[in-house]
This record gives sequence, C-alpha cells and structure tokens, in this order.
Amino acid sequence: MPNQANVRPELSALIARKDLAALKKYLDPWLPADLAPMAAELSVEELAVLFRVGSRELGAAVFTYLPIEGQKKLLKLLTQEQSAALLNALPPDDRTSFLNELPLDVAMQLLSMLTPDERQVAQSLLAYPEHSVGRMMTLDYVAVHPDWTVRQALDYIREHGYDRETLNVVFVVDDAGHLLDDIRVRRLLLSPLDRPISELLDGNYTMLLPQDDREKALEIFRKFDRVALPVTDEQRKLIGIVTVDDMLDVASEEATEDIQKMGGSEALDEPYTTIPLLRMVKKRASWLVVLFLGEMLTATAMSYFEDEIAKAVVLALFVPLVISSGGNAGSQAATLVIRALALGEFRLRDWWRVMRRELAAGTMLGLILGVIGFLRIAAWSLFSNIYGPHWLLVATSVGVSLTGIVLWGSLMGSMLPLLLKRLGLDPATSSAPFVATLVDVTGLIIYFSVAMMIMRGVLL
Amino acid sequence: MPNQANVRPELSALIARKDLAALKKYLDPWLPADLAPMAAELSVEELAVLFRVGSRELGAAVFTYLPIEGQKKLLKLLTQEQSAALLNALPPDDRTSFLNELPLDVAMQLLSMLTPDERQVAQSLLAYPEHSVGRMMTLDYVAVHPDWTVRQALDYIREHGYDRETLNVVFVVDDAGHLLDDIRVRRLLLSPLDRPISELLDGNYTMLLPQDDREKALEIFRKFDRVALPVTDEQRKLIGIVTVDDMLDVASEEATEDIQKMGGSEALDEPYTTIPLLRMVKKRASWLVVLFLGEMLTATAMSYFEDEIAKAVVLALFVPLVISSGGNAGSQAATLVIRALALGEFRLRDWWRVMRRELAAGTMLGLILGVIGFLRIAAWSLFSNIYGPHWLLVATSVGVSLTGIVLWGSLMGSMLPLLLKRLGLDPATSSAPFVATLVDVTGLIIYFSVAMMIMRGVLL
Repeated sequence: MPNQANVRPELSALIARKDLAALKKYLDPWLPADLAPMAAELSVEELAVLFRVGSRELGAAVFTYLPIEGQKKLLKLLTQEQSAALLNALPPDDRTSFLNELPLDVAMQLLSMLTPDERQVAQSLLAYPEHSVGRMMTLDYVAVHPDWTVRQALDYIREHGYDRETLNVVFVVDDAGHLLDDIRVRRLLLSPLDRPISELLDGNYTMLLPQDDREKALEIFRKFDRVALPVTDEQRKLIGIVTVDDMLDVASEEATEDIQKMGGSEALDEPYTTIPLLRMVKKRASWLVVLFLGEMLTATAMSYFEDEIAKAVVLALFVPLVISSGGNAGSQAATLVIRALALGEFRLRDWWRVMRRELAAGTMLGLILGVIGFLRIAAWSLFSNIYGPHWLLVATSVGVSLTGIVLWGSLMGSMLPLLLKRLGLDPATSSAPFVATLVDVTGLIIYFSVAMMIMRGVLL
Repeated sequence: MPNQANVRPELSALIARKDLAALKKYLDPWLPADLAPMAAELSVEELAVLFRVGSRELGAAVFTYLPIEGQKKLLKLLTQEQSAALLNALPPDDRTSFLNELPLDVAMQLLSMLTPDERQVAQSLLAYPEHSVGRMMTLDYVAVHPDWTVRQALDYIREHGYDRETLNVVFVVDDAGHLLDDIRVRRLLLSPLDRPISELLDGNYTMLLPQDDREKALEIFRKFDRVALPVTDEQRKLIGIVTVDDMLDVASEEATEDIQKMGGSEALDEPYTTIPLLRMVKKRASWLVVLFLGEMLTATAMSYFEDEIAKAVVLALFVPLVISSGGNAGSQAATLVIRALALGEFRLRDWWRVMRRELAAGTMLGLILGVIGFLRIAAWSLFSNIYGPHWLLVATSVGVSLTGIVLWGSLMGSMLPLLLKRLGLDPATSSAPFVATLVDVTGLIIYFSVAMMIMRGVLL
C-alpha cells in the first residue's frame, strides 16, 4: 500500500533522475483523481515533466488542484499540443474558472485551441455572471430515460459513465431533454434490475437556474443534503449539474469574503499571500479612508467641548476609554447580527425582536462596564490625587455615560446591518468598523453632555 | 409532480382537518429523505400528529432537520413508545449531537429507551470529545470483502444497503474488519460484473481517527473531493464513516465561531435568535470587560500627558481620530492574517514574509491617512482660527503620528495572531478588538511623543 506522505518525494526523485520509464510505471496503477492532490504539490517545473509522461486525465486532474498562479506558469512550460490536450480534457467548470482569471487576449488564444464542441461549451459557461451557478456548472452528467429498466440504466452508466463528474446522482429526462426527476444512485442500486426507471420517479427534485447566485446553491445543498443538483433553463430543460465538492470551496470563499468585509476591508478575492501588494493596499485603503473621514467628525465634536476640556482636563483622560467601549460593544453586536442574517436565522421583518434583545443585552453590558469604570476611578482616587478633588463627579460621569454608550453601541451595531440589507446592500460591508466610527462620534457627545450635566457649577 | 412550495401548507391543511387517513395517503409515495426538509417547517404541534401517522423512517428524517429547541419540544409531545421508536431509528450521528445538547439526566433517561445494541453505539459515540470526528461518525456504512465479485458486491448492496447513510462509497475490509481500501461507487458501476473486488483496489485511501478534530476532516474533504471518509482505530480497523453533508454544516459552524470570536465575543455555540439572553450576555461581557480593562491603560497613558493637554487643548481634539485609525488598520490586518491562517495559506515559519508585506502595506496606508489628516487640518485652518495660530505644527504632529500609528497598527495586527497561534491559542480569539485596544494605548504614546518633539518650545 503506497504511503500517501511518500508520493510527492518519490515522484520528485523519479523526475530528478529523469527516469521517464520508471515514472510512467509509477503513475500507471493510480486513478488520476487519487494521485492528483499529492502530485499537485510538485514544483511547476516538475509538473511539466509529469505532464509529458502522464495521461491526459492525470494532467487535467492535477491542473484542477493548482492555484491560479501555478496554472498560469505551468501552461507556459507546456508545448502548444500539450496545452491543447490539457484544455480539452479539463472539466468544463474548472476550465471556466481558469479562463476567467486570464487577460482577455490569453483566454481567447486558449479558447481557439479547443475542439469546436468544447469551445462552444466553454463560451456558453463563460457567458454567465461571476459567482453564478452557471460558472460552476459541469455538463458531464448521466441522463437516463424513464422507459429504461434499472438494468439498462446501469449498463448505460457502465458504458458511458467514465468521464462523468459524478455517478452518485443520475438525471431522468424526456425525449426533448426536459428534466423529469433526479435519482440518487442508491435508488438504482437498491431496486430490482427489471424495474422500469419510471417507477422510481417521485417527481420531487430541486433545481437551479444558471443565473442563480452560488450562495443560493449553497443554501439548497445544505438544506437538502444533496451531492449534486440539476441546472435547467427556464423551460426546465436540463443543461448541466453542480456537485457538492465545489460547494465546500464556495462555503469557504463566501465566509472569507464576509470576514474580510467585516474586518473593514474590501474582499481581496485572492489569497493574502499572493495578491500583488499595490492591489491589496488599494482594497484596504478605500475603507480606511472612508472610516478616517467619518472619524474626523470626532475632532469636530470634541472642538465643541474645547472649553470644557480646558476647564477640566481630567475629562479628556477618559475619552479613549469611553468611546472605545462603545465601539467594541457595537462591533460585537454587528458581528453577531451579520452572521445570523447570513445564516438565515431571522429576517428583516424580525428587526423588532433583535432590537428588544439588544436593548436588554446592551443595558446589562452597559451597567457592567459602567460599574467597573466607576469603581476603577473611585479606587484609584482613594489612594492618590490623580483625578483631583472632584473624583466622585468624574467617576459618576464616566460610569453613567459608559452605560449609555454601550447600550447605544449595541443598538447601532445590531440595527445598521439590518438597515444596509434593507437598502439592498451587503450587510457585511465593513459594518463592524463602521459602527465603531459612528459610535465614537455619538459617544463623545453623550460623554461630554453627561459630564456637563453632572459637573455643572462645580468644575464646568 | 408535487410542487415543493405547496407541501408544507398541504400538510398543515390535512393535519388541521384531522384527516389522518388522507394524511397517511399523502405521505406514502414520498421518500422520507425527500419529504423531511419541507415537513420540518411545520409547527411542533403539527409534527406530533405527523409522527403519529408517518413511518419511523420519516419521523427520524424529519427530526434531524429540526433545530435543537424544536427537537426538545417535540420529544415532550410524543408518547414513551413513540420516543423510543424515534430514538432507535435516528441516524447515530444525529442522535449523538441531540443527546449531547440535553441535561445529563434527560440524556440518560433517553439512552435507557434504546435497544441494547443501539445503546452501545450511542454510548461509544458520546465518549468522543466535542467537535471530534467520533461525534459526527455514523456506523451505517457498506463494507464488502476483496474476494467478492462486483456482481456479489452490487447484490449485497441491493439487499443490505437500505438503511446505510451513503452508498456513494463502499469500504473494503478483510475478515478481521481492517480497512483495505475505499471504492467510490462509480468504480463499481463502471467495472465488469465478474471482476473481483480485489482487482479494483489501489490501496489509496485517506482515513480519520475518531479523536481527530472535525476541522481536520473538513480540510481533507476539501482537498480530496470525497463524499465519505472512513474512520478507523489505531489498528486500522474500520469503525465508522463521516459523510460530506455533515461537512457543509461543519464549515458553516467553524466560520461562525471564527467570525464571532473575531468580532470580540466568545463563540455563542447557539443561534443568536434562540440563545437565552443571560447566556449571551455572559459570553459577550467577558471579552468586553477584558478589553475594557486593557483600554483603562489609555487613561493611565493620557494622565502622563495631562500637562501637555492643559497647555495645548487642541492636541486632545485629535486623540480619537488618531488612535481609531491605528485601531482600524490593526483590525484590518488581523482579520486578513487570521483568515489566511485558517485557510492554510501560510505557516508560522513564514512570519517574516507577512511582516515584510505589512511593513510595506502599513507604510503606504499610513502615508495616505497621514497626508489626508495633514491636509484636513491645514484646509480648515485657512478659513478659520479653530486650531489656533500654530495649526501648521498641529497638522504636522497629526500627520506624522498617523503615519507611524497606522504602520504600527498593521504590524501589531498581523503579528499578534501569529503569536497567539505560536502559543497554542486560537488566533481568531478576539484578535481584531484586542489589537485595536493595544494600538489605542501605544498609539496615544506615539501621538503625544511626536507632538512634544514637534511643538517643543512653541506650545509645550
């Protein structure tokens, strides 16, 4: 039994020795799909040798595992003929996502290498919008007819199934190609061989349209525990399928997008380690600048209270503490609400329920921080004169305004994502830092107003 | 063809009419797995009626689709006998995760309802740690022997496959139950019927141990595009399997955990909408308090500069602006690095590459914000006297310190997650707000130190 951890070094050694005959013998017993993930860890130069020796299927399988940069480099090392063979052998969905990453002229050049049939497939898939189901679709599925028997269907699969993306689900179509049903392979395997397919149909299936967003597909896969879903046109004609293995990637990419947006940057759309520096700076700078412009309002707000600060400098000492606590409470609430929205835990019309929760939670959190803040100032003042003779008033101002600001932050944090969604925007878009900025400005006003009320006639 | 959208209202109507015979007739043609997702949207009271009429299999399938609260409520409405039938029919992995959510005494009571065989299964699965592969494992797989022919294997599946979780992969074991290989069903379907199974083996499989973390399973599923993976003990004896449909849930739960932690709260581990208020407040308060205690250092830092503030109150106006920009830059960098770490884009030993990237990105971002900050103060001062006669020095102080603080924030934000990981902690743990707090404190010191250097002898 070959040990998987040894595969890559063994391949490397064979390639380094330039022993192509031994390399071929090593590759022979492997199923391409099994070897591919390990082989994909070879260097691009090693892969070029592997592609010379290995089968078209192995080449295509390995190619799908490479990151886009590796794919581009490898293609440059292959001969015209090898490239053509590779591109024609690639699963249509992987080919689509590769071509999509290339400059238009290179993509057109590669398209011209395809056989007329494959070219038509590639062009039709590329015509769908990015992040749509159509882009992830493959046309290599198994379709059977309702008047066949189970035996005929299994024989058909044995004969024609080899290059199909999945055999776990087969699709039943009428003579015009309209989808009648999908059947899990377990149904075929568990039925008597002479039973007609038509008797296995329950007419119950879920289908996608090629223009559907891939997040919708993810939701349906998650809900119905499917391994493959049919894609049809508006007339229910079967045009392709989407398989669950692509969904794990979609789930991860969608989470990455949300996380990056929530962290206050545009979605990078490429790995952090390989995105060109300037492109990354551009994506990060845009939101930092927006937040900075928003945050400038804090300077304006504070300038209204310049006289008060001059009279009681001690007030200024607690500005960062007070407003950052509001910001933290706000980011926290925003994060929880955005994620719950993304998971479909509640709908926009439930906003009142969310607001009630945050009213209660925000009040409690505010009181906790307010009391700690009050005690901190009181405790320090018992042993030193750092906060002056009126420390009790200062402590009260900080404690009271903290309670209000944390409550306010929780409310803003929970409601802003809902507002963004109501306006048709992505609620994840920079919400947490945006809320923090908003709460900073309003928090200052709350803090100084509370302080003026409490200290009127004494310090101010 | 039944329209899926109508299923729930049609079921509701039949239940409301108490027409149990018609309800039974309606249920009959459905496969339990197909009907379950729609039926699970009924109210708990309606479900109790459905469970009276439907098959054990339907009941079990519907139950797996309910949220935990619904499961608990429903079980209370069922008779002792119904509960026992349901629990025995549940897939072992779903039963494990349900029992795990119950108070110990209730769980023990339910365990006692199981048949001795099922009880042994349940107890062994519950013995694995939370979030481990063992907890998600199911024992309902198909195992075949290498000396069988493909025909024998297919016949065996037809006879015994009915209650197995998946037929997409079958597992080959020797007489002692040791795993020899896994075979995708496509391999069986594509091979001549009289071929022995032993000739289909390539000895290439990836297996999990029951104590492995579920994140490891997710990674392997994603890498190898599998629909099911075998779980073995240390002696390679096959003890269960894990299927891909559970992985979509794991992917979503892991992302939720990371997002919530990055948002500055503990992972809620339950839906936002249903978690009891006090439990949620507890999970949120702990981190808010930690951050608050950290943020108190800002008051300490500022008190060192109290004299400077008293002399030049104008400096205080820009404190929130300057430190929040550092915090935003830090959260941004932390978020990107945490996500890249979670996706395995780089390893700890690559820290220097990350640091170099952030040195460059942070410098550029800092210069952008520094220039904007300088221009903003300069522009306002041309038309008003708001920042006093020494506005040029103020603008320079703000611009220079902004550049330094944003760079500093980017470096801290990128390095802290790596440090946490190095210490064996979860890098997602509250990193973004934690970085913001750290940068607030150090940012103050940078800001006032820069201002003192630039304004020495003039204002200070």
